[in-house]
Order: sequence, then structure tokens, then C-alpha cells
Amino acid sequence: MENKRTDIGSLGEFGLIDHLTGKFALSQTSSVKGVGDDAAVIDNEGVLTVVSTDMLVEGIHFDLAYTPMKHLGYKSVVVNLSDIYAMNAQPRQITVSIAISNRFSVEALEEFYAGIEAACKVYGVDLVGGDTSSSQKGFIISVTAIGQGEKGKICYRNTAKVGDLVCVTGDLGAAFLGLQLLEREKQIFLSNPGVQPDLEGKDYLVGRQLKPEARKDMIELFAQNRLVPTSMIDISDGLASDLFHICNQSGVGAFIEESGVPIHIDAQLQALEFHLDPITCALSGGEDYELLFTISPNDVEKVRYLPDIFIMGEMVDARDGVRLHTKGGNIHALKAQGWQHFES
Amino acid sequence: MENKRTDIGSLGEFGLIDHLTGKFALSQTSSVKGVGDDAAVIDNEGVLTVVSTDMLVEGIHFDLAYTPMKHLGYKSVVVNLSDIYAMNAQPRQITVSIAISNRFSVEALEEFYAGIEAACKVYGVDLVGGDTSSSQKGFIISVTAIGQGEKGKICYRNTAKVGDLVCVTGDLGAAFLGLQLLEREKQIFLSNPGVQPDLEGKDYLVGRQLKPEARKDMIELFAQNRLVPTSMIDISDGLASDLFHICNQSGVGAFIEESGVPIHIDAQLQALEFHLDPITCALSGGEDYELLFTISPNDVEKVRYLPDIFIMGEMVDARDGVRLHTKGGNIHALKAQGWQHFES
Repeated sequence: MENKRTDIGSLGEFGLIDHLTGKFALSQTSSVKGVGDDAAVIDNEGVLTVVSTDMLVEGIHFDLAYTPMKHLGYKSVVVNLSDIYAMNAQPRQITVSIAISNRFSVEALEEFYAGIEAACKVYGVDLVGGDTSSSQKGFIISVTAIGQGEKGKICYRNTAKVGDLVCVTGDLGAAFLGLQLLEREKQIFLSNPGVQPDLEGKDYLVGRQLKPEARKDMIELFAQNRLVPTSMIDISDGLASDLFHICNQSGVGAFIEESGVPIHIDAQLQALEFHLDPITCALSGGEDYELLFTISPNDVEKVRYLPDIFIMGEMVDARDGVRLHTKGGNIHALKAQGWQHFES
Repeated sequence: MENKRTDIGSLGEFGLIDHLTGKFALSQTSSVKGVGDDAAVIDNEGVLTVVSTDMLVEGIHFDLAYTPMKHLGYKSVVVNLSDIYAMNAQPRQITVSIAISNRFSVEALEEFYAGIEAACKVYGVDLVGGDTSSSQKGFIISVTAIGQGEKGKICYRNTAKVGDLVCVTGDLGAAFLGLQLLEREKQIFLSNPGVQPDLEGKDYLVGRQLKPEARKDMIELFAQNRLVPTSMIDISDGLASDLFHICNQSGVGAFIEESGVPIHIDAQLQALEFHLDPITCALSGGEDYELLFTISPNDVEKVRYLPDIFIMGEMVDARDGVRLHTKGGNIHALKAQGWQHFES
């Protein structure tokens, strides 16, 4: 079947917004008014509203050479919802603004919004607003997520205490290795367009990069077990960088056991194939969208037997810094790495 | 004094956000947590939350050849607050995300945030979040405004009724004419860089374009006079286009008297100098950020003597369309014009 290509200009701005977002139904009782007015209206019954916003720029945060538009839409939502979960809150609404050049067709944008719709359904959030405009170059996405939290249960970054245990969900480093695989295949393709990408058996790693999930399940698990972490952040920049955010803002140090850092077997094998140390990928990789949190030592029994939660270490005095105890028995001071887009 | 120029890369992403937003204090009692965590936290005591978002793209929405960075910051906030006021609600918080190329210095961004801070002070809102990232080209701004409204007082676009009176605040067309003046001077400068811009006596028009204000005062006037408009929108795309939004969404037509459309004397004279019809500038110009609203005929006494509010016409049956009765006695069907960035 021939691919249909409709020019964006053929719909006009208002036509385009209607076309892309008109079918999004509101499912949240708190969503009073969605797309189509000057602003969205949200009914907050005396709870705390939690707001997070992120901007994603083509060529900086994503590469359309290997990112399907539908996955991009899904991921754009998920990375924002992850920030709301990292507050121990429930996302309820999102707004999505995009700027696009004329090289994008209406069909490509429909795919993007199909991904947004899929994420809205999986996470139970409503699309309630947004803006569509032209760009001079590339595709720029800005998502704002709005959630609700309970007083006394919101988790900040600046409230970890010496003696708290450091925990993490899921596994780390896989999204980074998925990105390296996609980049490798892109370079092979660019130097020899006849070669087809070889990603067989790499589903887990590529999936972690292209279609990450946010840990809604963990927030629910916390609630079921009456656990309120003493601090929390989502891992978007890499374990080391995000741990530093908690340590710096809380005025504490951390002591992490390498043996406690969860790394998927596929990530371990792929790291070795790339001649990388798996722990380095976990520490500096980023885009895992797992939750890094601390708990009071009194709560250790609440998490010890929970699935997919790992105790990695302990918060210590700030003067002791942020250190890693390796499997080989050495102790290294960690450095905050991660997001360094502005460095030349 | 020599202009200082600090490379963005010298601060790093987190350093840059801290540097630009660290000094923003929170003034709203509802702002529980601002910049510096995964999300902002807002305390809503059972009121309605109102959210609006806009994206501004260099080369599409603004031209840095004649837009000072401080004015750009101010205007970026104001255009979003205007959307919240157009819901008959009070803005309380904003988030600001930017994507920038390396050609911008830290000092230029400080100017931009100084404009944001000025707007926050004038309108009494808190900056509570945002994101800073690289762009491949140009400067992209995404602002989300969050406000509060009372149940029963929020004004939508789809609730105007036949017989309602059509009102507008301030005056129309001046921002468009200010833009034409700035564009003219830019073209003169480009063809002869030795010529200095001649904008003497054009303060009002240029000011309406570069430093617009949102009608916070009108929302307060409505409250003082116990007036709840039956529908409302802010004029960002031009009177005709925004009137069509209300008419289409409400399922009504409109009959407007040209003599009732407020146009500033400077705008009238400038239109004639450009060989344009002043009413055309008012109908299609856009960026006025005035409020277009409808009131029940029972409320006419409440607005008749209010300053800076003008009754322009009446809502009629949808079958009668949207029409203008000119000063010359003719009746024209209006067309929705305005924002057509995607058209080639």
C-alpha cells in the first residue's frame, strides 16, 4: 500500500489540532475541560497538584533515523509521567505542544499522537491541552504533566537522612546500551545503505530505549505497603547523576555497593560486547526511568520482599562523599555525569 | 562597558537552570514546591485548576532582530497569562522551558529571565518549573500557566447564546501595526545598515507589539461588579478569528457594528499611512491580548459605564453567520483569518 502523505498546511493550525487531538476523550473525573479553550480546567478536591514539564528536541534528545513516531509520542509522555511518580504522586492530565517543520506529514503526526494516546490509556491520564506551531528546523516537543498527591506523602529530593537505605527499582543501563546499538546500526546503514539493521535478540535493550515505561506500579506498591520513601527521584540522567541530586539537595553522602546495583543480563552481555564495564553503563547511562529512593531503616521490612526493588546502599555523612564499593573490594568516589549537552 | 559573553556550556545544564531560576522566590501560598525537584507542587484548596500552554519559536513567532530578550521573556509569560484570564481565572504559577543553540550567551538568557521575573512580579505569579535544553537552530520557548478559578465563574468559548451582547476590552490592531513598523525598519536596515531605525512617536504601537499586557484588571473589574461573562476568549489571532472560535463552539452567529470596534488613534493614523483599512487591522491583526466576551442582555447595566469595555454587537442565530455592519452602511460576511503559519 502506498504511504499517504498529507501536507500539514492543508489543514491549517486549528484544523491540525482538532485533527490530532479531537478524538482524545477525557477519562479523569478531575478533568473538567480539555483541549479547545484558552486553558484546561481541573477540579482539585483539596489535594496537592504536582506539575512537571520537559522539552524534547530532535537531534538532541531523539533521532528520527531509528525512532518510530509512535514510540516517540509514547516516550514523550512517559518521561514526564515518570517525574510525577518520582514525587510519589499520580499523574492525571498532560498537555503536549509541538513545533514542526513542513517536512512532517499529517500521517507522521497522527502516528506521534497515536503513541501519546497509547500512553494516556496505559497510565490513565487525559490529554487536556497543547499548542501546535511551525519550526524552522526539526521537531520539538514540550510535555507538561499534572498530577495529584496527598499531603504528607509527596517525596522530595532534599529530605534524605543519614542512615536511610538507598533503593532502586528495575534495572539500570539497558536504555543506554539500546541507544548504542541503534547508533551502531545507523552508522553501518549510513556507510552502506544496502545493509539491513541487525538487532535480532536485542529486543530488551532496544525496547528500553525506544519504549520506556514509568513505574506507576511501584507507586501503587508503596501505597499498598504503607511505605513513604524519605526522598525520591527518577533516573533520567544516570544513577550517579541522580544520586548526586538527592545527596546535594539533602546535604548527605552515600555509600553504594556495586553488588546491589541491578543490571539485566542482556545489558551485562551487551556491555562486555562493547568493551564497556556494565557498572559504568548503570551509573552513567541514563534514560532508565526507574525510581531511586531512600527509606527509613525502620521501613526495611516493608521493602525487603517486594519484587523489583533493590537495596543498594546507605546514606552517610556529607563529608564521606558519594562512594561506590566495587565487587573487587575497591572504594571509588563517584562523579556526577550524565546530561552534558551544552559541553562542546 | 564591554558586553560580557559567557558560554552556556561553561555552566552545564543544571548549573544553567540554577543560575537562571535560582533567585526566583515563591510568593503564592499555593506554591508548595518550585523549581528543583521532579515536579512542582501546588496546594489547591478545592478550587478549579486552570492550565494553559504555548510554544514560541524564533523566526515564526518572534524576530530577535528587533525583539529585546527581556521583552521576549515578559511577552512569553503574558501571552500565557492572557489565556488564564480569558477563562475568568487567576494565574498563580508558570513553568518555562527553553531550547537554545550555542549562539546565545548566558547574559542573553539572564535578560530573558529578567523579563520573566518582571512579568511574574507584575502579575503575581510564581515560576515553579521548567527545562533547559539545546536546540539545533534558534530559540524555542514553551510556557505553561496554571491558575485557579471558582466553580460557576469559569468562562468557556462554547457557552454564548443568541441575544448575548458582544464586548471587547482595550483597543485592537495596534500590535499588528507595531509589527509592521518593526518589519519596515528591519528591511530598511538590511538594505542599508547605516540607517538608524526611525520609530519616533511610535511608542504606543511598538509597545503593544513588544510588551503586551494581559487584562488582569478586567477580571478584577468583573469580580467587583459581580459580572460573569457568558463566554470569553483572548484576542491572539485577531478579532475575526477569535470571534469565530466563540461562534463555532457556541453554535451561534454574530452581528458586529464597525463603529463599536475600538481602535486607538495612533493605530488609525498608522493604518492610513500604510494604506490599510483600520478595521481590517483590528479584525485580522492579532496579538492584541484583549478580552473578547459575551454577556447576558440582563447584565448590560453592569458594563455600560465600565472603563475600557466596549459593546460591539450581538450574538445572533447561527444561520445568519458572522457579519460586520460597516460605518458606510454595508453588511459584510466576516472570514476567520489570523494564524496561517503552515500555509505556503
